[in-house]
Amino acid sequence: MAVQWQESNLPLGVAVIGIGRAGLIHFKGIRNNCKLKLLYLVDVDMDKVSQLIERNHLGGYVKPIHPSDMSTILEDPKLHMIVVTTPSFTHEQYIIAALHKNKAVFCEKPLAPDNQRVEQCYELSEKMKVPLYCAFQRRYDPGFRRIRDQVRQGAIGKVYVVKTCSRDSPVPSLEYLKSSGRIYHDCAVHDLDMVCYVLEDIPCSVYVKSHAWDPEIAAIKDDDTAVIVLGFKSGVIAIIDISRHSAYGYDQRLEVFGEKGMLKSENPREDEVETYSQKGVTLGKCHYSFPTRYEYAYQQELDEFIECILDPTREMLSGKKDTLLATRLAEACEESLRKKAEVPITL
Amino acid sequence: MAVQWQESNLPLGVAVIGIGRAGLIHFKGIRNNCKLKLLYLVDVDMDKVSQLIERNHLGGYVKPIHPSDMSTILEDPKLHMIVVTTPSFTHEQYIIAALHKNKAVFCEKPLAPDNQRVEQCYELSEKMKVPLYCAFQRRYDPGFRRIRDQVRQGAIGKVYVVKTCSRDSPVPSLEYLKSSGRIYHDCAVHDLDMVCYVLEDIPCSVYVKSHAWDPEIAAIKDDDTAVIVLGFKSGVIAIIDISRHSAYGYDQRLEVFGEKGMLKSENPREDEVETYSQKGVTLGKCHYSFPTRYEYAYQQELDEFIECILDPTREMLSGKKDTLLATRLAEACEESLRKKAEVPITL
Amino acid sequence: MAVQWQESNLPLGVAVIGIGRAGLIHFKGIRNNCKLKLLYLVDVDMDKVSQLIERNHLGGYVKPIHPSDMSTILEDPKLHMIVVTTPSFTHEQYIIAALHKNKAVFCEKPLAPDNQRVEQCYELSEKMKVPLYCAFQRRYDPGFRRIRDQVRQGAIGKVYVVKTCSRDSPVPSLEYLKSSGRIYHDCAVHDLDMVCYVLEDIPCSVYVKSHAWDPEIAAIKDDDTAVIVLGFKSGVIAIIDISRHSAYGYDQRLEVFGEKGMLKSENPREDEVETYSQKGVTLGKCHYSFPTRYEYAYQQELDEFIECILDPTREMLSGKKDTLLATRLAEACEESLRKKAEVPITL
Amino acid sequence: MAVQWQESNLPLGVAVIGIGRAGLIHFKGIRNNCKLKLLYLVDVDMDKVSQLIERNHLGGYVKPIHPSDMSTILEDPKLHMIVVTTPSFTHEQYIIAALHKNKAVFCEKPLAPDNQRVEQCYELSEKMKVPLYCAFQRRYDPGFRRIRDQVRQGAIGKVYVVKTCSRDSPVPSLEYLKSSGRIYHDCAVHDLDMVCYVLEDIPCSVYVKSHAWDPEIAAIKDDDTAVIVLGFKSGVIAIIDISRHSAYGYDQRLEVFGEKGMLKSENPREDEVETYSQKGVTLGKCHYSFPTRYEYAYQQELDEFIECILDPTREMLSGKKDTLLATRLAEACEESLRKKAEVPITL
Repeated sequence: MAVQWQESNLPLGVAVIGIGRAGLIHFKGIRNNCKLKLLYLVDVDMDKVSQLIERNHLGGYVKPIHPSDMSTILEDPKLHMIVVTTPSFTHEQYIIAALHKNKAVFCEKPLAPDNQRVEQCYELSEKMKVPLYCAFQRRYDPGFRRIRDQVRQGAIGKVYVVKTCSRDSPVPSLEYLKSSGRIYHDCAVHDLDMVCYVLEDIPCSVYVKSHAWDPEIAAIKDDDTAVIVLGFKSGVIAIIDISRHSAYGYDQRLEVFGEKGMLKSENPREDEVETYSQKGVTLGKCHYSFPTRYEYAYQQELDEFIECILDPTREMLSGKKDTLLATRLAEACEESLRKKAEVPITL
Repeated sequence: MAVQWQESNLPLGVAVIGIGRAGLIHFKGIRNNCKLKLLYLVDVDMDKVSQLIERNHLGGYVKPIHPSDMSTILEDPKLHMIVVTTPSFTHEQYIIAALHKNKAVFCEKPLAPDNQRVEQCYELSEKMKVPLYCAFQRRYDPGFRRIRDQVRQGAIGKVYVVKTCSRDSPVPSLEYLKSSGRIYHDCAVHDLDMVCYVLEDIPCSVYVKSHAWDPEIAAIKDDDTAVIVLGFKSGVIAIIDISRHSAYGYDQRLEVFGEKGMLKSENPREDEVETYSQKGVTLGKCHYSFPTRYEYAYQQELDEFIECILDPTREMLSGKKDTLLATRLAEACEESLRKKAEVPITL
Repeated sequence: MAVQWQESNLPLGVAVIGIGRAGLIHFKGIRNNCKLKLLYLVDVDMDKVSQLIERNHLGGYVKPIHPSDMSTILEDPKLHMIVVTTPSFTHEQYIIAALHKNKAVFCEKPLAPDNQRVEQCYELSEKMKVPLYCAFQRRYDPGFRRIRDQVRQGAIGKVYVVKTCSRDSPVPSLEYLKSSGRIYHDCAVHDLDMVCYVLEDIPCSVYVKSHAWDPEIAAIKDDDTAVIVLGFKSGVIAIIDISRHSAYGYDQRLEVFGEKGMLKSENPREDEVETYSQKGVTLGKCHYSFPTRYEYAYQQELDEFIECILDPTREMLSGKKDTLLATRLAEACEESLRKKAEVPITL
Repeated sequence: MAVQWQESNLPLGVAVIGIGRAGLIHFKGIRNNCKLKLLYLVDVDMDKVSQLIERNHLGGYVKPIHPSDMSTILEDPKLHMIVVTTPSFTHEQYIIAALHKNKAVFCEKPLAPDNQRVEQCYELSEKMKVPLYCAFQRRYDPGFRRIRDQVRQGAIGKVYVVKTCSRDSPVPSLEYLKSSGRIYHDCAVHDLDMVCYVLEDIPCSVYVKSHAWDPEIAAIKDDDTAVIVLGFKSGVIAIIDISRHSAYGYDQRLEVFGEKGMLKSENPREDEVETYSQKGVTLGKCHYSFPTRYEYAYQQELDEFIECILDPTREMLSGKKDTLLATRLAEACEESLRKKAEVPITL
């Protein structure tokens, strides 16, 4: 990498590529991060980009760019980093183009259609000495993180069982689902990662049981509800239960049970108001969806990425081997389903 | 059955056979139930029986009896019912003897060493027209019952996933474990029953993953921690996770997730005191073990049994087919473990 | 007292005088207490008594008695104790009659119309060496008791502020209210006692602010909602807020705040079920009223009384000076209202 | 006001005067608010200002300014608004200077040493047609706001009792306390405002009971713990209990009790992790202090102020009459203490 980034170079110039749901989350995070300076917003829908700039009073600073002009902005020496939040099938091309131009890349998963090409992306990053980052944002959630830290510090002794529960709200559009790579690569991958993150271990067997309750989801050969059981050499068992449905809002929980106790995290609620009436005691709602549920985690992962840019020796909290592992485990889930059986995991 | 029991015959005369842990629970429930009159306490340890009678000021009413005198008390026309809480291997003989003498039998599981003989017990009960009852006490817990009722009333719409979690406190003695029939018949059977109770359905597949963390439990070829996944024709999936260990007290939870919402029950705590300090907010402890956790449920199942004695047409909340089914499912768990695979369930 | 009661005399023979709401609570507690044997049920409504006996299958043991026959049963040497739960104005006569016949008396508050006569009751008890007991049942609630114990053990260091909140459900009948002695003697007296119980101290000033929201309650010159502030020489301040109304069920809370932390107790709920829906998370209801809310506390105070009968040297958890103090404080509340000012408390 | 501010003028240029605790809160809020552009940071400690600018990578945009140069920056036509977070006694001079130069003023309480001069500040604002804002940030807390909205929508019917509890963490420095105007003007003023905000009514009587547990606080003739009872013509009673101490973190709660139910808000906790161990169930900690507890509320009040600048007809959620009322009530508290009595409130 030609340019050596330093604290004194801050703020870093940033471009956001794709302003869909994930793009808007990172747009807001970048805007509020004093170490970053948003330079470009890139999207095929130029009107949408312009409105976003205007609505946020960024007219004097941020330029709307069409993807066809990517090569131009990649030449800008003030641009240090791109955030890729475009449809999945386009990620790889942006990553490769940016890394070649020495721009750090923060990209939503998946980096590429298969693990081999994901690995090539990381290899390019290593060769160019330019950071490439594909985060599992849940790792940055303060609650999940405290659980992991407590586990490592021995608060519950030897771990026996890990459980995650993830239910999506709202159900994604059918269009999105069609290109999502099925629920295992799209959703379960986060839970598979969380289990390995907490345990710092790799499972040796997987078993999946699933169903599609929604006829439209069944029609596109995807599942909307699944249970995954992972076995570990140590004897630890992990259970993941996921669903695309959740009438009561975004639901993501983690439980770790060990010889000395249990750590579990419940869902945060909109506020701490308790309403007492003849019907009982009603607490606030769960979050509606992930942008608000993980708002703080998204900010944290951005900060972490900046730290990694400033200090190339720093190990990312969520790096190459984590991405490859979670994807490999999602594949093993598919294999278990095809064989209707527990399958061994080999890496 | 020669004698027709009626409301006007109350209170019913009762004998408790075996005053171990379960026996003491029912002893207390009988003493506090105005529809019952304790007549005999039967145990090989006659000193223990005498002390129990004295400590409870029952000298004038309750007679201590040695098991060798069972035939005598079964001739007493004032005795209407026996409660069998002796070691498992002796259950069957007491059931058969009592039914033949027209005494109703309330017996802790298992009724007999295998399902065929359990069925014979029930057949004798039917033939003699004398009630035989083997309860799953959790069915009578107000929280679990409200969840089941809510599910039936459609509160959460179509059910997608059922989860139970059961962790034992304290770890039973090795002596007990040796004759317990392994964790599946001894513990999981309650969870297997709870799943069927809530769903009113029978699973068609089962998969088990397990481990023995305690070397002594491993040495007697039992598991202490297990995860069970049940598949249903409807598409519903059930997850059971159980353990003999629970450093934080008796832990039994139920969660039912459906299209319109979720019902879940947390553990009751000793009281509602919240302690705020620099360490955070500490709530009361979980119950230490099942006698206090299910105190109310044990009272309810006794009341239910009395109702069934008074009204022979009344269907028991937990009857012959439930007992046979849960045992059959526990056997299927063992089969899954032997084959290290998902196995189909045929009935 | 002629008769020396001993453990070996158990069970004690008991008569319940008055089978209204409080009477039924104690009836059930006595029935379930193996140290007691119910002999007589006394009430002007003999039909009601007979039905109660029949419904509880006590025909062979318990005799229905009309109050005009009290003198007869007081002659029964098998009767050791009476429980007085008649209308308030009749308490004193039963207490005096029973004490003179060496029968221990467990009586609902108030013992007599004024503190001077209450004191005379206690003096008679002392002279006759026969226990007289007027309990504040909240002292026996496990949650409140744990808070008091924690305070005494220094868990929160020096106490700064004590708060109780008590809201009644359902609103008592107007007929009851007319003879209740106003909200201060009828309700606040329990909170005033709780504050002194926790602090082991006596307040030196009181200020009351109140209102009657219900026009019928206003019409009988009573208040239905009030706030009481107590000052202590130590600097501790206590706040009591009470109401006859509570649409959401029986509400009784306690909070103690000190230099090292805070202890507070929330209301127990019917069960631990949590219902997740689009409306939020709904927990179980509060208890409807005091018979279920304090079921366990009522059992505990009965047990405590039995202990005091067996061991006359044992100090009652709630005794003469507590009863007199709480009544005195209720009077001071009335004085503050008359003067619309803070008033000093002199004892 | 010469300049008409419009949406198209955004972002507004801002100066922050004073970078103590409150200044840093608003500094962060301004930095993250896309409608605002920070131009100047003003403080006597120029080193501290420079470090703050550098640490936040604002070197190119934000200028460090010494208070003696205030007149210079007030001439800058790009500066639209100042945020005053200097020591209390200096507020008034900055307000007057800024309003005269057509700069909108967002100022921490108190605007001036007494209500008469506070009123003069507001009159100048009205005369100059330049917004002046002194916010009670708790009004913007989502939980408190939802309670108020629910009350207004009749969720609990007629209100009977309002309670607030506020305990400070950490104890402010003695130096701060000396110039804070005692606990009533410094702390209770927020609770007094909250009560009026929820009820939309003005109390007619006040009674205060207080103590100083900390000898140093006693020595400066201040109280550290106090209870305030407010009476309203409607019959509503409000209770406020406050303390400078709170060993368990920042504690601010609100409870509104009415004919149909109760609304209450508990303290938010650091996360949703529950730790189960032999000691019980431990939840996350309360916030340590107000900057994190009210982070979102501070953002909201800034947004509200911007809306008021853009739309001068918009009524502020917290305006002149609220500020004057809360101060008047704090004075009435002092009067009650001097007279050791309930005092009437006249406005």
